[in-house]
Amino acid sequence: MSLMQAVAKLQPAPGMETIQAPIPVPGPRDVLIQVKATSICGTDVHIYKWDRWSQGRIKPPLIVGHEFTGEIVAVGEQVRPGEPGVGDYVSAESHIVCGVCQQCRLGQGHICPNTRIIGVDTNGCYAEYVAIPVENAWKNPTDMPIPVASLQENFGNAVHTVAAVDVRGKTVLVTGCGPAGLMAIPVARAFGAEIIVASDLSPYRLDLARKVGADLAINPAETDLTQRAQDAVRGKGFDVLLEMSGAPQALVQGLRLLKPGGAASLLGLAPGTLNDFDLNNLVIMKGVTVHGVAGRRLWETWYQMRALIASGVVDLRPIITHEFPLSRWHEAMETMASGNSGKIVMYPGA
Amino acid sequence: MSLMQAVAKLQPAPGMETIQAPIPVPGPRDVLIQVKATSICGTDVHIYKWDRWSQGRIKPPLIVGHEFTGEIVAVGEQVRPGEPGVGDYVSAESHIVCGVCQQCRLGQGHICPNTRIIGVDTNGCYAEYVAIPVENAWKNPTDMPIPVASLQENFGNAVHTVAAVDVRGKTVLVTGCGPAGLMAIPVARAFGAEIIVASDLSPYRLDLARKVGADLAINPAETDLTQRAQDAVRGKGFDVLLEMSGAPQALVQGLRLLKPGGAASLLGLAPGTLNDFDLNNLVIMKGVTVHGVAGRRLWETWYQMRALIASGVVDLRPIITHEFPLSRWHEAMETMASGNSGKIVMYPGA
Amino acid sequence: MSLMQAVAKLQPAPGMETIQAPIPVPGPRDVLIQVKATSICGTDVHIYKWDRWSQGRIKPPLIVGHEFTGEIVAVGEQVRPGEPGVGDYVSAESHIVCGVCQQCRLGQGHICPNTRIIGVDTNGCYAEYVAIPVENAWKNPTDMPIPVASLQENFGNAVHTVAAVDVRGKTVLVTGCGPAGLMAIPVARAFGAEIIVASDLSPYRLDLARKVGADLAINPAETDLTQRAQDAVRGKGFDVLLEMSGAPQALVQGLRLLKPGGAASLLGLAPGTLNDFDLNNLVIMKGVTVHGVAGRRLWETWYQMRALIASGVVDLRPIITHEFPLSRWHEAMETMASGNSGKIVMYPGA
Amino acid sequence: MSLMQAVAKLQPAPGMETIQAPIPVPGPRDVLIQVKATSICGTDVHIYKWDRWSQGRIKPPLIVGHEFTGEIVAVGEQVRPGEPGVGDYVSAESHIVCGVCQQCRLGQGHICPNTRIIGVDTNGCYAEYVAIPVENAWKNPTDMPIPVASLQENFGNAVHTVAAVDVRGKTVLVTGCGPAGLMAIPVARAFGAEIIVASDLSPYRLDLARKVGADLAINPAETDLTQRAQDAVRGKGFDVLLEMSGAPQALVQGLRLLKPGGAASLLGLAPGTLNDFDLNNLVIMKGVTVHGVAGRRLWETWYQMRALIASGVVDLRPIITHEFPLSRWHEAMETMASGNSGKIVMYPGA
Repeated sequence: MSLMQAVAKLQPAPGMETIQAPIPVPGPRDVLIQVKATSICGTDVHIYKWDRWSQGRIKPPLIVGHEFTGEIVAVGEQVRPGEPGVGDYVSAESHIVCGVCQQCRLGQGHICPNTRIIGVDTNGCYAEYVAIPVENAWKNPTDMPIPVASLQENFGNAVHTVAAVDVRGKTVLVTGCGPAGLMAIPVARAFGAEIIVASDLSPYRLDLARKVGADLAINPAETDLTQRAQDAVRGKGFDVLLEMSGAPQALVQGLRLLKPGGAASLLGLAPGTLNDFDLNNLVIMKGVTVHGVAGRRLWETWYQMRALIASGVVDLRPIITHEFPLSRWHEAMETMASGNSGKIVMYPGA
Repeated sequence: MSLMQAVAKLQPAPGMETIQAPIPVPGPRDVLIQVKATSICGTDVHIYKWDRWSQGRIKPPLIVGHEFTGEIVAVGEQVRPGEPGVGDYVSAESHIVCGVCQQCRLGQGHICPNTRIIGVDTNGCYAEYVAIPVENAWKNPTDMPIPVASLQENFGNAVHTVAAVDVRGKTVLVTGCGPAGLMAIPVARAFGAEIIVASDLSPYRLDLARKVGADLAINPAETDLTQRAQDAVRGKGFDVLLEMSGAPQALVQGLRLLKPGGAASLLGLAPGTLNDFDLNNLVIMKGVTVHGVAGRRLWETWYQMRALIASGVVDLRPIITHEFPLSRWHEAMETMASGNSGKIVMYPGA
Repeated sequence: MSLMQAVAKLQPAPGMETIQAPIPVPGPRDVLIQVKATSICGTDVHIYKWDRWSQGRIKPPLIVGHEFTGEIVAVGEQVRPGEPGVGDYVSAESHIVCGVCQQCRLGQGHICPNTRIIGVDTNGCYAEYVAIPVENAWKNPTDMPIPVASLQENFGNAVHTVAAVDVRGKTVLVTGCGPAGLMAIPVARAFGAEIIVASDLSPYRLDLARKVGADLAINPAETDLTQRAQDAVRGKGFDVLLEMSGAPQALVQGLRLLKPGGAASLLGLAPGTLNDFDLNNLVIMKGVTVHGVAGRRLWETWYQMRALIASGVVDLRPIITHEFPLSRWHEAMETMASGNSGKIVMYPGA
Repeated sequence: MSLMQAVAKLQPAPGMETIQAPIPVPGPRDVLIQVKATSICGTDVHIYKWDRWSQGRIKPPLIVGHEFTGEIVAVGEQVRPGEPGVGDYVSAESHIVCGVCQQCRLGQGHICPNTRIIGVDTNGCYAEYVAIPVENAWKNPTDMPIPVASLQENFGNAVHTVAAVDVRGKTVLVTGCGPAGLMAIPVARAFGAEIIVASDLSPYRLDLARKVGADLAINPAETDLTQRAQDAVRGKGFDVLLEMSGAPQALVQGLRLLKPGGAASLLGLAPGTLNDFDLNNLVIMKGVTVHGVAGRRLWETWYQMRALIASGVVDLRPIITHEFPLSRWHEAMETMASGNSGKIVMYPGA
C-alpha cells in the first residue's frame, strides 16, 4: 500500500499533526485527485483550535481541508464518459449531498439536510491525494492558475451571496472584509454595482478591500460608519447589504443603512444568538428582504465563478497574501488565525 | 357651513368622542366621499387606548379611522377624466405617498418614507364624509358588498403578505389569526397552497380560522405546535411561514418549522426588540428568505384584491363578526379590544 | 424467461401489434414496474399513425407508451435506500436525462439535449411490465387513484405551462382544449386565476372545458372569439395566454388579446412554421414575455402535481372520458384519434 | 412673444425646415427647458424621410426631436418642491404616459396604451426651448457631460433590453450594432456578461462594437456567423440573445444559437411580418423565454442609467461619432441616414 503525507486531527484536542497515511482507493463513483494546491478556510482554523463547534462535529482521526484543486489520477469503475476523468484538472464542491431529498430534487442541493462535508465529515485535502465522489469534482479550464483554482470553494460563498440579490446599478455595503467579504467586492462590481462601501475592524483587510475595488473602506472603530457610508451614497442609504462578518453590530448597522425596499444577503455567522434585535424597524416596516446564504448553488454558482475568472473580470490573485508548502501548515494556520492575511494557499509535495 | 357627525380624538389621552365637525371641502386633487361603511383596525384601538406609539404619532384634534368605503359626492377642480369621479363607489388606500421619492418612482410607494396615513396624520373616516387625494381612491365594482368593500385596506395587508412568496403547491404555516391572519388563509388557498396550518392563542379565532379554510388550527398553549404541525405535513416542515401575530415565540417556532430553502413573509410587529434570536440556525444556514411586509403594493395588491373578491374565490363575509352603527363606536371598540371578534364594521348615519 | 403481453410497433409503417415479449430485466440503476394503468398521449397516436415525426424518430421494434403508473416489483443492485423500492407505487417522468450536461447541472433537465424518452427511444409501458431508471420513478401517495396517477406525465405539461407564469388574480385565456389544455384550466384556477376563458373547435371538448371550470368556452368557428373573450374581461384584454393548441390562428388571436405587459406560455406545437407573423405588434411593442414550455420541470412540477392532486384542489377524473383493457388498445387509439375524448386510460392484464 | 429657432416638419412630405417659432409657455405641470444638446434617433430619420409609419402617425406642423438634455428655465405654477425646478439640468423621458391606466398603476408605464411621444405627438426638442410635463423631466448629476446626458433616452432602450434578462456570467450575442446595439455591449459587460459576440453588416459599426468592448464582432455577410460565434463560446451556444437589428435573419440565427433554456430580449423591429418562422424549434421545444422590449422602465431604467454613467462603468463617448450645430441638422440627418455613424449630437444656438 502506497503512503502519502497528510495533515490530520488525531485527537479530540487543539492542534493537528503531519502523518503518513495510505493513498485513498476511490470507490465505484469516486475520483482520486492528486492535490496541487489547498487553501485555508476559517473552518479549518476552528478545527485546528478545537472550538466548540469542532468538538461537536469532528470525529478524529480525520485528514482536514476542503478547499483545493488538483489532477484526477484514477477513477472508480462506475464513473461514466462525460464525467470528469483521468487527466482533468478539477476543484471540488465540498458538500457531498444525498441527491434524493426534496431540496436536492428541487435544485437546492446546497441546503440538503443530509450534507456531509469533505475535510469535516470525510477525509480532506490537506494531503497529497484525496478521493471524492465524481459528482463533487468540477472541471477547470486548463489555463486557470492553480492557486486561483484552489480558492473556488470559498469564492463560491462570495459569488452566491452577491448573486442572491440584484446589484445592477445599486449601492452596496459589504460588512466584513475577511476572505469571503474581500471576494464579494469584485463580484459585486462585476455584476453591476455602482458604489461599493466596505467595513472591517482590521486596517490590513481594509487595505486589501481598497485594492480589490471598494470605493470606500471604513473602520467603524475609528470613524462613524453611518455618517461616512451615507456620505458616499448622497445620504440615500444603500440598496444592498452583503453581511460577511457575523458581527451583530455590523448586521444592525448594515440593516439600518438599507433603504426602504432594500435587500440583505447574509453569509456571516454570529458567535451566538442576537439580543435587542429590532426586527420591526430594521426589516418589516422597511419592507426589506433578507436572504440567508449557505454554501454554493449547485451548479449555478460554479458556472458563474468559471465565467468571472475566465473572462478576467474578477482577479482573485491580490487576495492571496501568503503561500506555503503544506509541510509548513503550522505556520500557515497561525498566520490565518492572526487575521493579518487574505487567503493562504499551501502546496503538498512542495 | 354644513356639519357632520364624526368620532375624534380631542385630547392626548385615552378615549375618543362623538363630535359635530364641518363637512370637509375637497382640495384641487381631492375627492369628497360619503362614508357608507368603516371597519376597525388594530391601529384604531391603539389610538383609542392611547398607547405609546399613539402618544408619539397622533396630534389631536383628529378624526380617526382609515378603513372604509363610500360614494364620491364631489371632486376638486383638478381631478381629471379617467380618474374616480362623482357617483363612483370607492375604497381608499390609506397611505398618502409623495410620488417623487425613489421608492415611489420605483413602484414601491408602499414604503415611501414620506407617507402620511389617513386617520393617523390627516382626518379619517369615522365620519359621515371624508376628503382624500384622488390618487388614494380605488374604484370598486358596483356589485361589491359594502361591508366587504370596507375591509380592503386591511385585506390588502393579507394579500400583500401572501403574494410576497410563492405558495403554489406549498405547505403554509400561518401564525396569528387576528383579522389579517384570518384573511391570509383563504388567500393562501386561492393562490395554490396545498396544506394550511394556523395557530393562535384564542379559541374564538381558531374557530374562525377553521371556518375560512385552515386545514388545521392549533392553540400552542394547549398543544405541542411543532409536533401537531409536523404531523400535518408528514414531518417535512413547511415551505412557507406567514407571520401575522408579532409574537416572538410564534416567529421563532415558525422559522424553526420551515424547511431548508423555505420562505417567511412577516407582517406582525413584535411588542419590542427580539432577544436570544438564533439568526444562524433559523435563517442563514437553512438558506431561508425573509420578506418584511408593509402596507399594500400600489397597485398590484389592489388589483389582486379586486380579482379575489370579484371571482368569489375569497369570501370575506365570515370574517365580519360584528356590525354597529357608527354612533355605537364605543361598544365596537371595546369588542375589538376584547380579542373575541373578527372584523367589525360600522355604518355612519345609521 | 417469463413473457408478458405488450403493444409494439414492429414495422416502420402505420399500426401497432399485440405481442408476447420477455419481461424486462432491470439494469443496476433500474426499477421493474408492474404497470397498473397507462394513458394515451397524442404522441402515441402519432406513432400509431406513423406521421412524419415518427418516421424520423422511431426505430422499430419498440414497445410504445410513456404515461403510466404501477408498482415496483424488482430493483437493480445499485438502487439505494431512500430511492423508490419494491412495493412502492410510482409514476414515471418519461424523459431520461443525462445528468451531466449544463442544463441538467442547472436544474433544467427538462430541456437536456441528450434526453431519451420512454416509449419513444426505449421500450415503453403499453405492457404488463416496464423497466426504467430509478431516477425516473416518482413515488405516489398510496391513496392516489390509479387512473389519476397514470395521467401525471401529461398533467405535468399543463402544470408546467401554467406555473411558468404568474396567474394570481389574473385573467387567463386558454387556447386549445385537448387533454393538456383541459388540465390547464383547473390548474390556473388553483393557482389564483380570476377569469378563465377557453377556446377550441370541438364542441365535445368545450363541454369538458366548462365541466372543469372554464368561465367561458368559445368555439371560434361559430363565434367572434375576440369579441366574446373581450366581453368576459370588460374589454381590458388578458393578462395571460396559455397556448395549448398549436394552431397558428389561436396563437395570433391569443397574443392579440393580451394586454400590454402580458405573458404567454406556449406548449402547443404548430404543424409547421409560421407565416405572416407580426412579432412587432404582438410581442415587442406590447412588452409581452413569451415562455416556451417543454416537458416538466424536474422536480418542481412533480411536487406541484402531487400537492394539487393530494389536496383535492384539482380533480382530474372528469377529464378521463374512456377506460379500456390494454387488449382493446386499437379501439382506444381510434377513439383518441377521433378528437371526441378527454384522456383515455388502459389497464394491462385486464 | 419671444421667438426661437427650431427644426420642424411643416408638410406631410419628405424633409424638414428651419423655422422661427414662439418659445413655448409651460402649462401648470410643465417645465420649460433650454435645450443644451439633442441627439438623433432612428425615428427622427423616419420622420425626415416620411416613411409609411410617419405618414400614419405625424400631424404637421410639428417640431421634431425627443432625445435631449437642457436646463430648466421656468416651471408651471403646479410644479411642487421636490420635483425638478429652475436651474436643474435634466434629460427627458420621451413617453408622456397617462398615469391612470392599469399599466401605469402597475409600474409598467413604459407600455401605457395612452402614451404620447415628445417630438412625435407633441412639439419636440430640435429647438432652443421645449416644454414638457415635469413628470418627464429627469434630473442629471451636475457633472454628467452634456452630450452624454442627451443620449439617455436611447441609452435607456439598451439598458432596458439588457436588464430584462440575467447576463451574470453568461454568454451574450448582440445582433445589430446600430446605436442601441452598440450601447447594449458595455451594459451587458457592466452587468456581468462573460463573453459578448456582436454582429452587423456594416464594417463601420463592427469597428465601433469592438471599441466599446465586444469580444468578437462578426459580419455575417462575410463570415459564417454560426460557426464563428460557436467557436467563441466553445460550441455551447449562447445563454442570451439581445436582438437589436430587427433583421429577421438575425433573429432566427440568434434564436438558433441560443442554448436550451436561453433567454432572448428583443428590441429591434422587423420591417414587416415574419415568414417561415420556426417557433417550435426556436422557442418552444428549447424552453426559451422571449422578452419584448419597448421604451424604458419608469423609472428603474433611469436609475440604472444614472448609476452606469456616474460610476464610469459605461462610457458612451466613443459611441458619439459626430457633433453638429443644430443649424446643420440637414447634414446631421443625412450622416445618420448613411449608416456610417454612431450617435450624432446637435447643439442649438451653436
